[in-house]
Amino acid sequence: MNLQRVADKLGIKVEKLGDLTETVVKRSSWPQPRLLRFDKTASGVEAGTAVFETGDIVFGYPKIRRALMLRPALKRHFTDRVAVEEKMNGYNIRVASIDGEVVALTRGGFICPYSTEVAERLLPERIFEDRPDAVLCGEMVGPENPYVPKDIYPTDSLDFYLFDLSRKNCRGTLGVHETHEFADEYGIKAVPLLGEFQVDRAYEEIVDIIKKLGKRGREGVVMKDPENTLSPIKYTSSESNCTDLESAFQYYNDYALDFFVSRAVREGFQSAEWNESEDERRKRALRLGESILLPLVSTVERKMEGEQIVQKVQIRVKKLQTAREFEYHLRRSGIRAIFDQPEPDDDGYLIRITKLVMSTNDKTQALIEGDTW
Amino acid sequence: MNLQRVADKLGIKVEKLGDLTETVVKRSSWPQPRLLRFDKTASGVEAGTAVFETGDIVFGYPKIRRALMLRPALKRHFTDRVAVEEKMNGYNIRVASIDGEVVALTRGGFICPYSTEVAERLLPERIFEDRPDAVLCGEMVGPENPYVPKDIYPTDSLDFYLFDLSRKNCRGTLGVHETHEFADEYGIKAVPLLGEFQVDRAYEEIVDIIKKLGKRGREGVVMKDPENTLSPIKYTSSESNCTDLESAFQYYNDYALDFFVSRAVREGFQSAEWNESEDERRKRALRLGESILLPLVSTVERKMEGEQIVQKVQIRVKKLQTAREFEYHLRRSGIRAIFDQPEPDDDGYLIRITKLVMSTNDKTQALIEGDTW
Repeated sequence: MNLQRVADKLGIKVEKLGDLTETVVKRSSWPQPRLLRFDKTASGVEAGTAVFETGDIVFGYPKIRRALMLRPALKRHFTDRVAVEEKMNGYNIRVASIDGEVVALTRGGFICPYSTEVAERLLPERIFEDRPDAVLCGEMVGPENPYVPKDIYPTDSLDFYLFDLSRKNCRGTLGVHETHEFADEYGIKAVPLLGEFQVDRAYEEIVDIIKKLGKRGREGVVMKDPENTLSPIKYTSSESNCTDLESAFQYYNDYALDFFVSRAVREGFQSAEWNESEDERRKRALRLGESILLPLVSTVERKMEGEQIVQKVQIRVKKLQTAREFEYHLRRSGIRAIFDQPEPDDDGYLIRITKLVMSTNDKTQALIEGDTW
Repeated sequence: MNLQRVADKLGIKVEKLGDLTETVVKRSSWPQPRLLRFDKTASGVEAGTAVFETGDIVFGYPKIRRALMLRPALKRHFTDRVAVEEKMNGYNIRVASIDGEVVALTRGGFICPYSTEVAERLLPERIFEDRPDAVLCGEMVGPENPYVPKDIYPTDSLDFYLFDLSRKNCRGTLGVHETHEFADEYGIKAVPLLGEFQVDRAYEEIVDIIKKLGKRGREGVVMKDPENTLSPIKYTSSESNCTDLESAFQYYNDYALDFFVSRAVREGFQSAEWNESEDERRKRALRLGESILLPLVSTVERKMEGEQIVQKVQIRVKKLQTAREFEYHLRRSGIRAIFDQPEPDDDGYLIRITKLVMSTNDKTQALIEGDTW
């Protein structure tokens, strides 16, 4: 790899790139092709940026900031019109073709073997024949999502929804319209485009959308500048905030503390901005309280009955090799998981995975045995 | 100060004491008498331990650990009988006589001028004439508590409740019985002793006590070994957990994240251990949810109406000098506060204090102006 050429493409000095190597910039030599990845944002290069040994660079997808108070955030961030897309609840993937092979990169810039197999299956080959430089940014969602399994989308397994397009060796994205045209052209799924509104009347429309999405258990919206010159912002439904809390409190000792508090704070801002009645507020408080209390009770009760506190997920693969590689991928991501024997199914395999949540498991065990905190 | 003598009394090597100086052991030269204080627990010396230049040492009061699952904690921590005292909700003070002067030490080992004046007023002089070595460990509670003002105790101002006794230059405490006998002898208030039970039937009794205390807005209990050979443990009511959350979410950006999560987790364990009905659980969830949502909404709404987010408290002093000194004491404790003009009242002064919660104030202001998070 020619470091000078890489530094030029990244737009940083070669000495700076050298300094970052092994601290922020990490080598990943598996699976092929080998790459350097930015573990954090540094020198203006987004976290998750991957530099392949072929010289190709896939830039990290920028973090989307969140509105807590929607009306002033819209007014402050957008000028004329705002496009509203559904924010889907899964995990972020960037798919590109490197040296003729499709690879799916995680947010952190690792190649994920499972997502790569799914992307190869779902994306027509001609995409990268026509557009060898395309980077497809999308959300992997569905019940066979091993991180955030969700039954709320029209798939039995795992599906890919395009939410943005980019190009190798280029920062920035191509914007809402090109993204949806691209999806149409190649017959692939894209996140629903729910409307485009004048900024001054967008608030009412979006609140309406959020309430409807919430009722269906959906996460929320991403608001984008149709001209693609301003950065997008996101906003979520109460139901999604509460569902997040529900999962997190089930594994209360394995989550970062700010995960809990941030979601509670979102509920407070939404309730205040929506100027809710006493009754609506009581309903929201009950929903919030239950999303905290019930999973905690369930975890304690399960432990009292001698159950292990674990998280069960599943994946579906065409090749057994993919499952073996995904097992290694989870391990290197710091996730402890036990893979069951693959069960042949259609033309592939179903693999049930037990993710260990050791900290919650051990803490709960100690506490029900009378340990103090 | 003879460091060798101090080290001997602390039971650590003089070189170790030297090493700790200026890192863990800090000098405090105001107000008189001057002292060294242990900022953290180190070499087996409790945090808050104060070494006066007279040579007297007041050891820190040991942290009391908390039961999350009461029945097994009782079984595991006590052997024969358990004494149950009310845990009062205020702030911890240790009162001693140093060189003939009464001083009230905070948990951290600072002399608090306000608490010192209150202690001088409430504690009969003959205590330290009879027992010059006594260290009175107690809780300062009431509506004129400038940290945790509470209207639930029978005082209009600030009252001192003894919860343990110790002696200068001695580790350890004298136990439940000596403490209450001492309070009786000198006619001072002590935390209520609610009963002494056989360990194997204590659980039902304590749950009953906790429910009754909760209904009155009281915090909970401290369980002690009547023989004073085992360390005490504490357990709190749901109402107290929720009241804590209520205050904390009002100032959501000025509290440590674990404050929120720990209280939610306590609710989960209590509900599971009490084997609550669906209806009881719904009530608890609503109480929990409201204690999070409503203070957040109130903070946002107040900010939207242009109010500053501050915390108003008040103190009552006999001497104006005490108020001036307390102002300095708050400042050195890292609390930003504005003191109003003293209002003469009875034979003293009422002083209203506005405590600034800058982080919550600024964050909320930014968010209602459309800042993203």
